[in-house]
Amino acid sequence: MENKQIKNQAITRQEDDFAQWYTDVVKKAELMDYSSVKGFIIYRPYSYAIWEEIQNYLNKRFKETGHENVYMPTVIPTSLLQREKDHIEGFAPECLIANIGGGQQLDDPLIITPTSETLFCEHYQKIIKSYRDLPKLYNQWRSVVRWEKTTRPFLRGAEFLWQEGHTMHETEEEARTETLKMLEIYDDLGRDVLAIPFMKGRKTEKEKFAGALETYSIEALMPDGKALQSGTTHYFGQGFAKAFDIQFQGRDGKLENPYQTSWGVSTRLLGAIIMVHGDDNGLVLPPYVAPVQAVVIPVAQQKPGVIPAARELEKLLREAGIRVKLDESDKTPGWKFSEYEMKGVPIRVEIGPRDIENGVVTLAKRNTGEKISVKKEDMVETVKNLIPQIHKEMYEKAYKYLLEHVTEVKDLKELDKALEKGGYAKMMWCGDEACENKIKELTTATARCLPFNQMAFGDTCPVCGKKAKKVVLFAKAY
Amino acid sequence: MENKQIKNQAITRQEDDFAQWYTDVVKKAELMDYSSVKGFIIYRPYSYAIWEEIQNYLNKRFKETGHENVYMPTVIPTSLLQREKDHIEGFAPECLIANIGGGQQLDDPLIITPTSETLFCEHYQKIIKSYRDLPKLYNQWRSVVRWEKTTRPFLRGAEFLWQEGHTMHETEEEARTETLKMLEIYDDLGRDVLAIPFMKGRKTEKEKFAGALETYSIEALMPDGKALQSGTTHYFGQGFAKAFDIQFQGRDGKLENPYQTSWGVSTRLLGAIIMVHGDDNGLVLPPYVAPVQAVVIPVAQQKPGVIPAARELEKLLREAGIRVKLDESDKTPGWKFSEYEMKGVPIRVEIGPRDIENGVVTLAKRNTGEKISVKKEDMVETVKNLIPQIHKEMYEKAYKYLLEHVTEVKDLKELDKALEKGGYAKMMWCGDEACENKIKELTTATARCLPFNQMAFGDTCPVCGKKAKKVVLFAKAY
Repeated sequence: MENKQIKNQAITRQEDDFAQWYTDVVKKAELMDYSSVKGFIIYRPYSYAIWEEIQNYLNKRFKETGHENVYMPTVIPTSLLQREKDHIEGFAPECLIANIGGGQQLDDPLIITPTSETLFCEHYQKIIKSYRDLPKLYNQWRSVVRWEKTTRPFLRGAEFLWQEGHTMHETEEEARTETLKMLEIYDDLGRDVLAIPFMKGRKTEKEKFAGALETYSIEALMPDGKALQSGTTHYFGQGFAKAFDIQFQGRDGKLENPYQTSWGVSTRLLGAIIMVHGDDNGLVLPPYVAPVQAVVIPVAQQKPGVIPAARELEKLLREAGIRVKLDESDKTPGWKFSEYEMKGVPIRVEIGPRDIENGVVTLAKRNTGEKISVKKEDMVETVKNLIPQIHKEMYEKAYKYLLEHVTEVKDLKELDKALEKGGYAKMMWCGDEACENKIKELTTATARCLPFNQMAFGDTCPVCGKKAKKVVLFAKAY
Repeated sequence: MENKQIKNQAITRQEDDFAQWYTDVVKKAELMDYSSVKGFIIYRPYSYAIWEEIQNYLNKRFKETGHENVYMPTVIPTSLLQREKDHIEGFAPECLIANIGGGQQLDDPLIITPTSETLFCEHYQKIIKSYRDLPKLYNQWRSVVRWEKTTRPFLRGAEFLWQEGHTMHETEEEARTETLKMLEIYDDLGRDVLAIPFMKGRKTEKEKFAGALETYSIEALMPDGKALQSGTTHYFGQGFAKAFDIQFQGRDGKLENPYQTSWGVSTRLLGAIIMVHGDDNGLVLPPYVAPVQAVVIPVAQQKPGVIPAARELEKLLREAGIRVKLDESDKTPGWKFSEYEMKGVPIRVEIGPRDIENGVVTLAKRNTGEKISVKKEDMVETVKNLIPQIHKEMYEKAYKYLLEHVTEVKDLKELDKALEKGGYAKMMWCGDEACENKIKELTTATARCLPFNQMAFGDTCPVCGKKAKKVVLFAKAY
């Protein structure tokens, strides 16, 4: 009873107001706090620890594939950002600009880095001379600033944390391969670590990155039916290289421009984790990134033997490599249950006088609510097995939801209905931007991607009636 | 001959011009590059990888001692930075200030974070309510911006990377203990990882941090006789807590202000590593932070069997957990020897046709130049043993230099002579700032610290002749 009351006070229900549920969860689960500047948030320990797990996984994958980390300046002179025309047009409206340094007015105002293509290019221009210097496979972890009008924690901020890879290659083929290879690594991150199935594909001309020839993205589907772009990779061709005079002596002795890519994921992934898996009791964290994978809660802890038994369980789990926490504070067990449900801890380990008497431990799974009683000596092994099992269950649940929310549509009425239901409207498309614009105008949905699976299921574009050339996925999006 | 020529072309000799030697090394060893904005440097892969090793060590130590990582905003409203009087006075002259966001003039201009005390305090004010919420042991890794007039790579920049710990405690004693504990962790980093012996002590009132009650520092001694402040820890008492209205309900039910500390080390440590250990052939990296601990160089690699033998050595070393690189590029062995000497790789592994014939491998130590011939089957074990051995030799060499450059002085003439020789002039001091100022005026040297060992060796202050109360170390400093 007490337990339920706490839950009800805690957060808005998803079906009542999904946006408010999200805002409640990010605060109540102590993921973030607002600072006094709109759109600049504080990443509290609980969200930062998830980000560190994401970093660990990606750093390992990046380094295995030959990438090296660097760090570029936090400021870009206005004149430098202007070197590539499309790029500056894309970013100019979002810039935070500094014009006073050490009490003096600056001649060339400095833009607080919104993305680092121009900085990498300026550096590459100096260090790439020969085909022997290629490829350059650099990545950096940093924060970037984009002056957004509408902001939501983790989803859209004036500042966010990300990694941005920027690579230079001798040949077009090598750069194209890199663009797709990094997309695969992001997809692996979703499937193997975050328990999120991504929709992968190429962006339309309208939706691609400012300055890129091609943009690819991973898109996650939220329970409110909206898509969340969760990562992108870009193929630039030689555009920036030409704008920045980057040249190398090729194997034939001639000067050439290298081929470029960039790719990034950000703390927006935290937003995806929260929404894809969360429920009315709060977060449900995928076990491989959960800062605490198992929490040990003593029941009737004032009774003799309970605290020592709980401490022993904690020790056993820690020694087995589980990220474990023991809560022996003076709060009631009911209060603690609710708190760690809110925080989405995958496994709760309960131990009370009766369990001790019977030589058992009770395990509760956050994702399903299921309770399991195991012999004490089997506890560690069971928890170790539960981690991949919970991950799999969470992934499969999200994947099922995704499959149920891809609707093939043949006309605008079906498109409307599909978008009403939520998720992706899969449509044949003539390829004209006019039709893409019209759908956005009518529905606010945007082309999320041209999926890699281009199996045609019709001949005409539902908007203009002309011959259809491509399969495209439309959805409302964050 | 060829080898020598390359070396001579490469960098200025230390004794000819130490400052120029430093500037040459940071560029030639590919540690950094300049960006187009003065004082904002590019951390290239080779320096960033050293920084990552430092992060790994410190993160482990911080987490073991209960600290959690967070991330705070990159901007501070001017009004917020002004909340603590001494603090804003200290930082105002160095601020980079943004006043345009999204094309609009900002009402409250934003300072690009030079340090985050005020942001932490604003957050702590919201989340600390009870003694149960204490201690708060937060740390963050980030870049900060300080608009410095005179800049040198890694040593003093308009932007640098650092960690800043900010903690809040229930009692004064606990906060004071934290301040000293973190200094010990920094000292361990020097002794066990960087092979740098630090001089530890308390800063004078004049030299302490803006807003702190007490500042402690670790100081490293450079080969040009100048000290380099390499890390600081601060005890703040309740000053900021009062200025920011941070209150908690104590165990007795009464409202109290918590006690605060902060502490940080930065990429300045890279400057210390470069200078303390480097020589006329370039970097000499301490093996525990060296991005490459051993480089395998095939000699006469066009001869049959040499490349496969070199690859086998690389594989064996990698499997033994050594950070190893094989260079089978078409450069000459002499060229490669010079390159990896410049980059300070601790161990060079040479393998040529004659070595193969004799079943041996030649190992060369960067720090001493010593060459060792070992049986192939003993190679891995020897390299594994060389790592702690080289570390120890490098530490002992630096420690011997330090001991030889601490001179007890009894009068101003001796002080001058000691500073002329280089290193620390150890002096009895009355404690008056006037005498401290006078020494600075006469010699440009500053009080580096009041060392923890306060064993008196005289009764009078050499400047004013009054009764001496403290032992103080003066030195010229970066």
